[in-house]
Amino acid sequence: MSVCEKYFPSEPSQPKVVTSEFPGPQSKAQIADLDKVFDSRPVYFVADYEKSSGNYIVDVDGNEYLDVYAQIASIPLGYNNPALIEAAKSPKMIRALVDRPAQGNFPSSDMKEIVDGLLKVAPKGQTQVWSGLSGADANELAFKAVFFWYQEQKRKGAPFTAEENASVMKNATPGAPELAIMSFERAFHGRLFASASATCSKPIHKLDMPAFKWPKAEYPSYKYPLDQHKEENEQEDKRCLAIVETLFKSWPSPIAGVLIEPIQSEGGDNHASKEFMQGLQKIVKDHGALLIMDEVQTGVGATGKFWAHEWFELPTPPDLVTFSKKFQTAGYYFHDPALRPSVAYRQFNTWCGDPARMIIGGAIGAEIEKHDLVSLNARVGDYLYGKLDKLAQKYPQYLRDLRGKNRGTFIAWSLPSADARNKFLSDMKTVGVNIGGCAEDSVRLRPTLVFEEKHADILVEAIEKILSKY
Amino acid sequence: MSVCEKYFPSEPSQPKVVTSEFPGPQSKAQIADLDKVFDSRPVYFVADYEKSSGNYIVDVDGNEYLDVYAQIASIPLGYNNPALIEAAKSPKMIRALVDRPAQGNFPSSDMKEIVDGLLKVAPKGQTQVWSGLSGADANELAFKAVFFWYQEQKRKGAPFTAEENASVMKNATPGAPELAIMSFERAFHGRLFASASATCSKPIHKLDMPAFKWPKAEYPSYKYPLDQHKEENEQEDKRCLAIVETLFKSWPSPIAGVLIEPIQSEGGDNHASKEFMQGLQKIVKDHGALLIMDEVQTGVGATGKFWAHEWFELPTPPDLVTFSKKFQTAGYYFHDPALRPSVAYRQFNTWCGDPARMIIGGAIGAEIEKHDLVSLNARVGDYLYGKLDKLAQKYPQYLRDLRGKNRGTFIAWSLPSADARNKFLSDMKTVGVNIGGCAEDSVRLRPTLVFEEKHADILVEAIEKILSKY
Repeated sequence: MSVCEKYFPSEPSQPKVVTSEFPGPQSKAQIADLDKVFDSRPVYFVADYEKSSGNYIVDVDGNEYLDVYAQIASIPLGYNNPALIEAAKSPKMIRALVDRPAQGNFPSSDMKEIVDGLLKVAPKGQTQVWSGLSGADANELAFKAVFFWYQEQKRKGAPFTAEENASVMKNATPGAPELAIMSFERAFHGRLFASASATCSKPIHKLDMPAFKWPKAEYPSYKYPLDQHKEENEQEDKRCLAIVETLFKSWPSPIAGVLIEPIQSEGGDNHASKEFMQGLQKIVKDHGALLIMDEVQTGVGATGKFWAHEWFELPTPPDLVTFSKKFQTAGYYFHDPALRPSVAYRQFNTWCGDPARMIIGGAIGAEIEKHDLVSLNARVGDYLYGKLDKLAQKYPQYLRDLRGKNRGTFIAWSLPSADARNKFLSDMKTVGVNIGGCAEDSVRLRPTLVFEEKHADILVEAIEKILSKY
Repeated sequence: MSVCEKYFPSEPSQPKVVTSEFPGPQSKAQIADLDKVFDSRPVYFVADYEKSSGNYIVDVDGNEYLDVYAQIASIPLGYNNPALIEAAKSPKMIRALVDRPAQGNFPSSDMKEIVDGLLKVAPKGQTQVWSGLSGADANELAFKAVFFWYQEQKRKGAPFTAEENASVMKNATPGAPELAIMSFERAFHGRLFASASATCSKPIHKLDMPAFKWPKAEYPSYKYPLDQHKEENEQEDKRCLAIVETLFKSWPSPIAGVLIEPIQSEGGDNHASKEFMQGLQKIVKDHGALLIMDEVQTGVGATGKFWAHEWFELPTPPDLVTFSKKFQTAGYYFHDPALRPSVAYRQFNTWCGDPARMIIGGAIGAEIEKHDLVSLNARVGDYLYGKLDKLAQKYPQYLRDLRGKNRGTFIAWSLPSADARNKFLSDMKTVGVNIGGCAEDSVRLRPTLVFEEKHADILVEAIEKILSKY
C-alpha cells in the first residue's frame, strides 16, 4: 500500500467534473456574498475542505480536482492529512491557540520541543531558528539580522553612539544607514515594503509603493534542453556572476546581503546551476556580505531534496535560509552565533512567531522523514518529467523549455504566449485539474508530497487531452 | 456569580510565590536549554500554560502570578478560557489548521461566516476587512491600501503607464513613488521596515535598519491631573495640530496617510483629547490624505469601549482601523469602497491571513458581546483608577502622572526614573504580580477583560506592599 493510500483510503481515484463553468454556480453565489466584506476577485472557486482529500480539492459545486497547485505551493501532506489532524487536536495545540504566548517574554514549557521539531529538518549546518509569520515576514526578519550583523562588524563591540540614537528617530543616517540588499531580476520575495523592494517579477506586485533603492543583478537565463546548451549556459553563469561583482563594487550604498531563490518560482521557474550558486557564495563572502537563501517555495521536500540548495553542494552552509509555505510556519535558520544581535530585544516583536503553526510545521517535518517523502518526490518527479518530456516531443510549442529535470516534481514549462498559458490553465479545469502559472507564459507544477505515479498519469493524460484539441 | 468565576471556577484566589529569585531555578534551566536554538534573552520566565487560569499565569517553578501584562496586552479572555478551547476544538478549526487555504484564491465555504465574526464587532461604519498576520503586518497592509488609493486618485482611472511599469522594477519613480506616511514622535507601529519607519518610541526598535524618510509630528504631552491643566492642555493640542498642518505643507514628498494610536501605548500611555483627534481628522481630510487608527493595542475592549477611538466622537469613521493583539488575528477595517484597489491582485499574498486565528478572533468578539465585557472593563477600570488615585496621594513620587481615567483598565503612571521603574517591575514579582512597563519610566496595566474588582484589590494591595518599602 502506498503512503497516499495509507493516509487517504478514500481519496478519489480520478477527477470528477460536474459543472460546465468555472467557478460553478454555487461558487459564484458564495463569491458574490463574500465580496461584500472581503476582496474576492482573485477567487478561483470556493472550496469544500471537509470533502477534500489527499491530492484532491473539492469545490462547493462538487467538482473534484486533482490539485497540482496546492494552495500556491503550500500544502505538503495532502488535504485532511490524518497526522496533521492529530497534531491539530493535541492539548499542546489547544493551548497554543488559546493562550497565545508572547514567545520572546513568556514561552511555554514545550517551546524547546516545538523549536526542536523545526530544527530536526533544518538545512545541514543550521543550528538556530528565528520564527515569523509569512514568507515576506521571514525575509524581512532575515534582512534585519543581516543589517544588524553588518553594522556590528563595523562597530566592533562599541556601543551605539549618541548620534546614532538621535538620528534613527528621524529615520536619518547614521542611525538608519543607507544599506542595501541585492536581489535578482524576476525574483519574488514578498509584498511588504522591504521585501517588495527585493521583489522584481511583476510590476503589479509593487506599483505605487515607495521602495528602497536596492540593486538587482541578473539571474541566469538558460537555454533548454540544458544538455544541448552546456557552453552557452556556462557563459551565462559567468556573465551573471560578473554583474553581481560589478554591483558590489559600484552600488552607491554598501550591499550587506544577497537574497536569492534556489529556483526562481513566481518569476518563471528559472533555474541556476551549482557552479553559479557556488560562485555567488564566494563573491558574497569576498565582499563581506551575507547570503540569504529564500526557500519559501522550494523548501520542505518540493525539489527531491528537503532543501533545494542541497543541490548546489555549497562548500559552507548559506548564512540564512528562510522558509514558509509548505512548512505552514515561517522564519529563518542560521548557524553563525554572530547573527544573533549582540544586544537583546533587537530582533523582537509581540508574538515572535506562532506556536500553533510551529507545531504543525514540526509535524510536517516528522511525517516527511517518517515516510521518506523526499525520495518519493524525487522518484515521482523523475517519472513525471519523463512523461512530460515525451509529450513535449509531440507538442513542442505548448511544452516549451521544460524545466526541472531531476528536481522532483518542481517542474515547469512555457507556452507560446500569456493568452495561450491562461487558456491552458482554464481548460485544465474542464478535465478536473487545478493547476497554476508563473511568470507571464509558464505553467508550474506544485503538487503535494504525497503525489504518486498514479496521479502523474492522470495529470499527463489530462494535459494531452487539452493539448490535442489545440 | 461573576463572569470570571463562571469561566474559571478554579482560578487561584490570590498569587502564590514559591521562589526567591525570578526567573526561578526551573525557568532558568529551561531558558538555558532554549537559548541553544532560539534567542531567549528577553524571557522573563517559562510559563506552564496548562496550569495557568483566568487572570493567573503560572511558571514552571510553580509561582502563580496575577497577570496584568497578559502577553504584552494580547490575552483578552483569560488563560485557558473554555469558550476559546471550544473554538479551538471545532471541526472548522481543525480544517483551518490542516488545510490552510490560500484565502485569496481558494477560500473555504465558511470564509464568509469567519469574516462576519470579525465584522460583527467592527468599529461603527466599517464594513469591510482585509486580514493579515501581526500588528506590523496590519499597518503595512494599510499603508499599501493608502498608497494605492492615493495614486489612483491622481490617475483617475487611467491605466498604469509604460514608464510606471518599467521604473517600478528598478525601485524608481514614478512606478515606486516618493510618498510618505506621517506618524508621531513616541509612536509604536511595529518593527518591519515600513512600520519601523513610522515607529518612533525607542532607538533599539530600529537602529541599523534602512528607513523611509517619513515625517513625525508631535503627539500631545499633557499635564496631569488633566482637570487642573485644561487651558495648557488645550494649547498643547493646538500646538501639535499646527505641526501636523505645517508638515503637510512643507514635507518634500506628498503625505498620503497619517497613522496614529488612540493612546500611544509602547511610547508611554500618552493620551490625546477628542478635540485633538477631531482636529487631526479634519486636517488630514483637507489635505486629501487618509487617517489610519492603529488600534493594535487599544482595540477589543481594552479602554472601556470596544474600540478606543469611539471616545473621540469623530464626525466620520476613520478611513482605516488596524487591529491585532487581543483579537489574536490581525488586519484592517475600512468602509470606503475606493480603498479596495481598482485592479485585482494588488493587495494580495499567499495566505491572505490565517483562518485559524480569525476563528479565534470571531469567538473573542462574540464572548465579549455575550458577557458585555466592555462594560465590565469600564466599571472595573473606574474602580481601579479610584484606588490608584488614592494611593498616588500617599506615594506621589512613585505614582506620578496617573493616566487613563475613564479609560477602563488602560491605566499607566510614571516613576522617578528608568531604574526606579525597572526595580518596581521586578519587585512586583516578589508579591506575585506580572506587570509591564512602557516608555522609559512608566508602568502600564494591560489585564485581561475578565479582570474584576477582586483582582484590582489584590493588585493595589501588592503595589502598596512594594511602595511602602521604598
